[in-house]
Amino acid sequence: MTERVVLAYSGGLDTSVCIGWIAAQTGAEIVAVAADVGQGGEDMDVIRQRALDCGAVESIVLDLKDEFANNYCLPALKANALYMERYPLVSALSRPTIVKALVDAAREHGASMVGHGCTGKGNDQVRFEVGIGALAPDLKVLAPVRDSGMTRDKAIAFAEERNLPIDVNKKSPYSIDQNVWGRAVETGFLEDVWNGPIEDIYSYTQNPATPRDPDEVVITFASGVPVAIDGRPVTMLEAIVELNKRAGAQGVGRLDMVEDRLVGIKSREVYEAPGAIALITAKQELENVTVERELARYKRGVSQRWSELVYDGLWFSPLKNALDAFLEEANAPVSGDIRMTLHAGRAVVTGRRSDQSLYDYNLATYDAEDTFDQSMAKGFIELFGMSSRIAMGRDARNK
Amino acid sequence: MTERVVLAYSGGLDTSVCIGWIAAQTGAEIVAVAADVGQGGEDMDVIRQRALDCGAVESIVLDLKDEFANNYCLPALKANALYMERYPLVSALSRPTIVKALVDAAREHGASMVGHGCTGKGNDQVRFEVGIGALAPDLKVLAPVRDSGMTRDKAIAFAEERNLPIDVNKKSPYSIDQNVWGRAVETGFLEDVWNGPIEDIYSYTQNPATPRDPDEVVITFASGVPVAIDGRPVTMLEAIVELNKRAGAQGVGRLDMVEDRLVGIKSREVYEAPGAIALITAKQELENVTVERELARYKRGVSQRWSELVYDGLWFSPLKNALDAFLEEANAPVSGDIRMTLHAGRAVVTGRRSDQSLYDYNLATYDAEDTFDQSMAKGFIELFGMSSRIAMGRDARNK
Amino acid sequence: MTERVVLAYSGGLDTSVCIGWIAAQTGAEIVAVAADVGQGGEDMDVIRQRALDCGAVESIVLDLKDEFANNYCLPALKANALYMERYPLVSALSRPTIVKALVDAAREHGASMVGHGCTGKGNDQVRFEVGIGALAPDLKVLAPVRDSGMTRDKAIAFAEERNLPIDVNKKSPYSIDQNVWGRAVETGFLEDVWNGPIEDIYSYTQNPATPRDPDEVVITFASGVPVAIDGRPVTMLEAIVELNKRAGAQGVGRLDMVEDRLVGIKSREVYEAPGAIALITAKQELENVTVERELARYKRGVSQRWSELVYDGLWFSPLKNALDAFLEEANAPVSGDIRMTLHAGRAVVTGRRSDQSLYDYNLATYDAEDTFDQSMAKGFIELFGMSSRIAMGRDARNK
Amino acid sequence: MTERVVLAYSGGLDTSVCIGWIAAQTGAEIVAVAADVGQGGEDMDVIRQRALDCGAVESIVLDLKDEFANNYCLPALKANALYMERYPLVSALSRPTIVKALVDAAREHGASMVGHGCTGKGNDQVRFEVGIGALAPDLKVLAPVRDSGMTRDKAIAFAEERNLPIDVNKKSPYSIDQNVWGRAVETGFLEDVWNGPIEDIYSYTQNPATPRDPDEVVITFASGVPVAIDGRPVTMLEAIVELNKRAGAQGVGRLDMVEDRLVGIKSREVYEAPGAIALITAKQELENVTVERELARYKRGVSQRWSELVYDGLWFSPLKNALDAFLEEANAPVSGDIRMTLHAGRAVVTGRRSDQSLYDYNLATYDAEDTFDQSMAKGFIELFGMSSRIAMGRDARNK
Repeated sequence: MTERVVLAYSGGLDTSVCIGWIAAQTGAEIVAVAADVGQGGEDMDVIRQRALDCGAVESIVLDLKDEFANNYCLPALKANALYMERYPLVSALSRPTIVKALVDAAREHGASMVGHGCTGKGNDQVRFEVGIGALAPDLKVLAPVRDSGMTRDKAIAFAEERNLPIDVNKKSPYSIDQNVWGRAVETGFLEDVWNGPIEDIYSYTQNPATPRDPDEVVITFASGVPVAIDGRPVTMLEAIVELNKRAGAQGVGRLDMVEDRLVGIKSREVYEAPGAIALITAKQELENVTVERELARYKRGVSQRWSELVYDGLWFSPLKNALDAFLEEANAPVSGDIRMTLHAGRAVVTGRRSDQSLYDYNLATYDAEDTFDQSMAKGFIELFGMSSRIAMGRDARNK
Repeated sequence: MTERVVLAYSGGLDTSVCIGWIAAQTGAEIVAVAADVGQGGEDMDVIRQRALDCGAVESIVLDLKDEFANNYCLPALKANALYMERYPLVSALSRPTIVKALVDAAREHGASMVGHGCTGKGNDQVRFEVGIGALAPDLKVLAPVRDSGMTRDKAIAFAEERNLPIDVNKKSPYSIDQNVWGRAVETGFLEDVWNGPIEDIYSYTQNPATPRDPDEVVITFASGVPVAIDGRPVTMLEAIVELNKRAGAQGVGRLDMVEDRLVGIKSREVYEAPGAIALITAKQELENVTVERELARYKRGVSQRWSELVYDGLWFSPLKNALDAFLEEANAPVSGDIRMTLHAGRAVVTGRRSDQSLYDYNLATYDAEDTFDQSMAKGFIELFGMSSRIAMGRDARNK
Repeated sequence: MTERVVLAYSGGLDTSVCIGWIAAQTGAEIVAVAADVGQGGEDMDVIRQRALDCGAVESIVLDLKDEFANNYCLPALKANALYMERYPLVSALSRPTIVKALVDAAREHGASMVGHGCTGKGNDQVRFEVGIGALAPDLKVLAPVRDSGMTRDKAIAFAEERNLPIDVNKKSPYSIDQNVWGRAVETGFLEDVWNGPIEDIYSYTQNPATPRDPDEVVITFASGVPVAIDGRPVTMLEAIVELNKRAGAQGVGRLDMVEDRLVGIKSREVYEAPGAIALITAKQELENVTVERELARYKRGVSQRWSELVYDGLWFSPLKNALDAFLEEANAPVSGDIRMTLHAGRAVVTGRRSDQSLYDYNLATYDAEDTFDQSMAKGFIELFGMSSRIAMGRDARNK
Repeated sequence: MTERVVLAYSGGLDTSVCIGWIAAQTGAEIVAVAADVGQGGEDMDVIRQRALDCGAVESIVLDLKDEFANNYCLPALKANALYMERYPLVSALSRPTIVKALVDAAREHGASMVGHGCTGKGNDQVRFEVGIGALAPDLKVLAPVRDSGMTRDKAIAFAEERNLPIDVNKKSPYSIDQNVWGRAVETGFLEDVWNGPIEDIYSYTQNPATPRDPDEVVITFASGVPVAIDGRPVTMLEAIVELNKRAGAQGVGRLDMVEDRLVGIKSREVYEAPGAIALITAKQELENVTVERELARYKRGVSQRWSELVYDGLWFSPLKNALDAFLEEANAPVSGDIRMTLHAGRAVVTGRRSDQSLYDYNLATYDAEDTFDQSMAKGFIELFGMSSRIAMGRDARNK
C-alpha cells in the first residue's frame, strides 16, 4: 500500500509546493490538512480546493477555533502567559493545536509521516517536531524547506514548472502569522532594530494615536475563565473575538520587541493581540484582589516558566502538565468583575468586585470602621526582621 | 546628660505633634530631621523652622535627592524593580534613604533613640524599624502613632492646646507620599475598589486622554545607568526629573492596583511614576537586545525577589546585597540607545541600537545575507525534545 | 452557658497546669484533647485520666496515627520534603494534624477557644495559631505559657499547691518531641554548637558505629506512595513503622544541624527519622528513573518551597494547596521497586526497576544494542550553545 | 603554512588514533595537549611521548592541578554544587579547565582547529564545544569519533595497521573518568540499573562496611575557602587531596544514581568523591551557622541552577558569571571551623564554631540567660499568618 503523508497546509506557496515535492521525494500520497485557528484571510474552501489542485489525494479543512480558544488560549490566560513578560504566545499556542489535529488526521488516514513547511531558524519547527514526537513517536517528520533544499527560488520554479494554482509573485515584504489570539509580523525593514514600525503593518489594531471616544467594558470571570462581557454570557472564543474588535478599535495590544528564540538567536518581532492583552490585563488585576499573597508571588514564577516552556515548543510535556495542575488550583478563586477602559492603546482597569475578594475594607480603611489591630505590628516587625538585623549587625561589626 | 531622639520629620500634623509628644513621654530632646527626596511641596526652610517652633532642639534639612537617585532609584532601575510586576517601589525606596540619614544624624547628635510617625498597618513602619535595626541595633525606636495612643483626634487636641504652628484643619481626603521616583495616593473614596480614580488625584501626570503631540526621546544607557537624554549627558537625578516632566506631560506612568501589603492585608493604591516607568520600559528593551537569553530568563526571577525584598523593608539585608551583586554583573552589557515615543499614557520603544547588541542581523535575517546554518536544527530538535518525547510516549502508553 | 476551651494536652507538666490555669483565668471549662501521632511513651489512657484529675470536664484521646501517616507524612514524602535539605519536618507535620483535631473537637464540644502550651520562641506556636486561624477564624487562641506569665517555676508552684498528679521533679535535660515520622531533641548541652551529640540522646536509632550485618529491603511505590515492603503490602503507617524499626536498627536517619527558625533565630537541633529518611531516599532515586528531566529540575524548587511553607506553619494555606496539585501530578509516574541496603547509618539504593522507567537501555548503552543517533549531537550543540557563545564572544571582544 | 589542530589528548586508544586520523582527514599538524587534573594513572611523560610516537608534531603536558582546584573546584564548593542534589560535577568541572588550556595552546601554537575524542551521546562533547565556542568562536572543532565514523573497531584497525604504541586489547569493562575532585564509572553491567555496584569498581574509596576506627577532622574555612585542616594551613588542592585520602579511607563519598544527561537520555552513573563530599558537607553546615535565613533559602535555588548550568556545559556563560557574583557575596561570612567524624561511609558534622556565627546562644537558650522577648511572638503570628488566614477563611465559606 502506498504510504501517506499528512501535511500541515496553509494554502501559501511553500506548503502548496510541498505537496508535489514530498510526493516526488517519497512516492507517498499527500493528505493536506488546513486548520482554521481564526487566522482569517482566504476562504478555507478555496484553500481546501487548492491542495487538491496541487496534487493532494485528500484535503481537509478543520475548524479548530473553539478548540484553540478553549484548550490552548484559555490555559494561557490561566497562566497570564507573557513570554519575556510581553508576548502572549500567539504562534506558540496555535502550533500544538495544529500538531494534535495532524496526529489525529494521520491516525484516521493511515499516514506514517507528517510534513510541515517551517524553515530551520524559527521556533515553529521545534513546536511541530517536539509535539509530534510527544504525541506519536512512531510518525516520521518531513521538513522539506529545511532538510531537502526547498529554497524559495526552487519552490517558485517548481510551482511554475507544474503550473500550480499559486500566484508566485504575491510576496508580502513581511512574514506574518495570525490567529484569533493575535498576529505576528517579522522580517522586512523591521530587521533593522532601530527602525520603528509603520502603520501599514498593523491589521488587528487601529492607530492608538487617532482621537476617539473610549470604550468601557466589564469582563466577568469564573475561576479564571471569562464568562461574560458587559453581562452577556460568552464562550472563550466569543470573548476573544469581541475584545479583539473592541480593544483593537482602540489600538490596544501592539507590541514591538527583540525576542530570544529557542534556536539561540535574537529576532525582532511586532505583535498585535488586542483581545489577549485585554483579557490578561483584566485577569491579573482580578488576581490581585482574589489570590493570597504568597500564592500570587509564587505564581509569577510559574507563569514565567510556563511561558518559556510553551514558547520553547514543550506544550506536550510533563512539566507543562504539572504546572497546569498548579495553575488550575491557583485560578479557583479568580472570579468576579473587572471594569476596564479601552482607549488610545491602553486597557486600564478602573474597578474590581468579587465574592471571592480578599480585599477587606474594614482591615484596609483608615476610617472609623478600621478593625486592624495595630498593636500586633511591633511584635511582627521585631521577629520578621530579626534574622536580617542580626546578620547586618554582624556585618557592620566586621567592617 | 539629657537623652536625644532623632525624629523623622515631614512638617505635617503627625510628626509636628510627635516632637512635643515624645518629649513629654520620654523627657528627651528632639532632633528633627527632614529629608528632601524630591517630594516638592512646602519649602524645606519653612519645614525646618516649624520643627523648632514645635519644640525641637535641633532641626536639620537634608538634601538627599542625588543620594536617593544614585543609591536607591538606580539599583531599582538595575533590577527593573516592579513589585507585583507593576509598582516601581516609590515609597519603599525613600524609606531606606531616610533611615540611613536618621542613623547618621543619631550618631552625629548623640541620640539614643529614633522616632517615626508611621501607623501600625502600613509597610513603612517595617521599613523604618527593620532598617534602623539593621544599621544600628543599639538605637531604640519610638512609634508614638502606633504604640502610645497618638490618634489623629489626640494629635489635633495636642496641637491646639500647645498652639503649634500647624493648620489642623488642612486634611487631604487622601493619604499621599511622593518623591522624585513617583507619587502614591491612597484611602478616601479609593478604598471602594469598584470606584475608578478621578482626574483630581493626579499631580505628576497630565490626563492621557487629552489630545496632544507625541514626544520622542532617546535615552542612552551605560551598563544599566541612564547617562544621556537626547544626547545631553545627565545624572541619574536629572534623568528622572526630565522624564518625570516629559513623560508626565503625556500621561505616562499612572497605575491603579490592589496591592499585597507586608502586614497581610490588601490595599488599593494609585501611583504616578512617569520617569520611573519610562526608564524601566526603556531599559527592559535594551536588555532584550544585550542580555543573553538564559541570564535574561533567570534575571526576571531575581528582579521579582529583589522587588519583594525591598517592598518588604529588607533593603538592608544580606539577600538584597547578594542579589545586587548578581544584578551588577547582569547589567554590565546593558549599554546603548533606546528611542521611545511618549504619548497618550504610553511609553513605546521604537528603536534600539547598541555596541553590545547580541541581535545579529546576519543570523536573524531571511534575506540573502543569512549566515544561520539551518542544517543544525534537525539534530537540535531531536535532542532538545528527547526527554519530553520519551516521557510523553510512556504516558500515552499508560492511558 | 459556660464557655469552653479545647486544650491541646500532652500529659506533661505545662499542659496539665494549663487546665487549671486557663480555667482560673477565663472561668471556662476545659476539654483536654490528647492526640496519638505515634509518639509512644506513656499509655494514652493514663494521660486521659490525668487531664480529668487536673480538672478537665472532658478528656479525649484520639488515635491519629493513620490520619497523620496518610494525610501529613505522605504529602511530605510526595514532596521529598527536607527543610534546609536535611530535616524531614517531624514536628511541623504533627502540628497541623493536631490543629485539625482541635478544631473538630471545638466544634463538637461547643468550645469558643483553643489553648496550647507552646512558648514564644519556637515554631510550634506559629503552626498552632496560623492553622487554627485558617480553619476556624472565629476561635480565640489561648497561649498561657507565652502570654499570661506561666513560667516553669510558677507552673510547679501551681501544681504543688493544687496537688496535681504530676511529678514536678521529672525534667529531661532536653526538650523532646516525637511521633511516628521522627524525633527531635534540643536544648541542654546541645545549645553549645561545638558539642557533639552523645549516644544517650538517641532513642529511635541504634549506634551506627556498632558492627552488625546489613539489612536489604525492597520498597515498592505506586504513584509516590509506598505500597509494599519486600513484597508484602503495607499501609503508609505500616511502611513508616517497619522502616523506623529496620532502618533505626542500622543507625539510619540521625541528623544534627543548626536550623533557621521562623521566629528569626538559629537553633541547634538533633533529629532521628529512620523511616522518613529511608523512604525519601528511596523515592528520590525512583524519581531519577521515572520523572522527566525538566519536571525533575523544577520539582526540586517546589519541594524546597513546600518544605519552607510547612516548616513555617503554613500547612493550611493556598500556596501549599497549589504546590500539592503540582506534586500530585509529578508523582503520577513514580511507581516501581527500589532495593536498598540499610547499614552503619546509611540507606543506600542498589537497584531500581519500574514499568514507568524513562531509563532506556538501548539509548544509554555503549554496547551493540545502541539506538542513539549520534549524528544529531552536532546540531544540538551548535544551537543549544549559540546564545552563550555569541554573548561570550561579545564580552571577550570588550576586554 | 600547514594548518594545526590542538588535540585534547588522554593517552588512550581513541585520542591516540585521533592524531593520525585527523591528520589524514585534514592534512593538518597535530599538537597534542595532555592535561593533568589529578587523574593519576599513567606517568604524564609516558603519555607525552606516546603522542609524539603516534605522529603529533608537538606534545604538551600541562600540570593543571592547582588551576583546576582553585578556579573550578573552589567555585563549585562555593556553590555547594551537587547536580540533582547528589553529583559533585566531577567531569563537568574538568572539561572547562581543559577547554581553557586547549584554547590557550591553540593561540600559542597557531592552531585553527581543536579536536576532542568524545562520542555523540555524552555530556562532554557539549562541554568541549560550547566552551571552545565561547572562548574562541573562530576555532573550528573536530570530533572524529562522533562526526567522521571513527568507531572503536576502526580505531583498533587503524592502530594496528600503523603499529601505534597502544595496547588495543586493554579495555576496561567500564568507562572511567577521574580527577582530583572525584571519579566516575559507567557502562558495563551497571547499565542494568537493577544491578548493584560491586566492590571492584571503586578506587578512591575503601569499603565503608569494613570495620575500622573513625577519623575526626577539623576543617577551617575563610569566606567559603578551606584554608586549614586540623589547624595546618592548606591550599585548595591540598585540602582536596588530604580529604580524598582520609575520607576515602573511611568509604565516604560513594554515589550510585540514574542521572539526567543534557542530550536527553537517562544514564546510570557511579561516583566516588570523598574529598568533595566531605568539603561540601562541612561547608553546608558552616553556612547553616553563618548565613542569614532568607539568603540561605534563595542560595539553594542558585546552587541548583549553577549545578545544572555547569553540568550542561555552560561554564563559560553570562548566567554562570552572574551567579558567581551572587555566590561570592553569599560566601563572604562563611568562615570558621567545622569538626567532622569520617567513618563507615559517612562524613558527620559534630561541631561548628565561628566568629561570624549568627547562632546566638542567648537568643536560642531556654536557660536563664534567655534574652528573646517572647511577647513579640503574638503580634508576629497575627500578621505573618494574616493573608493565609483570610484566604483560607474565604475558601472554607465557599465549601
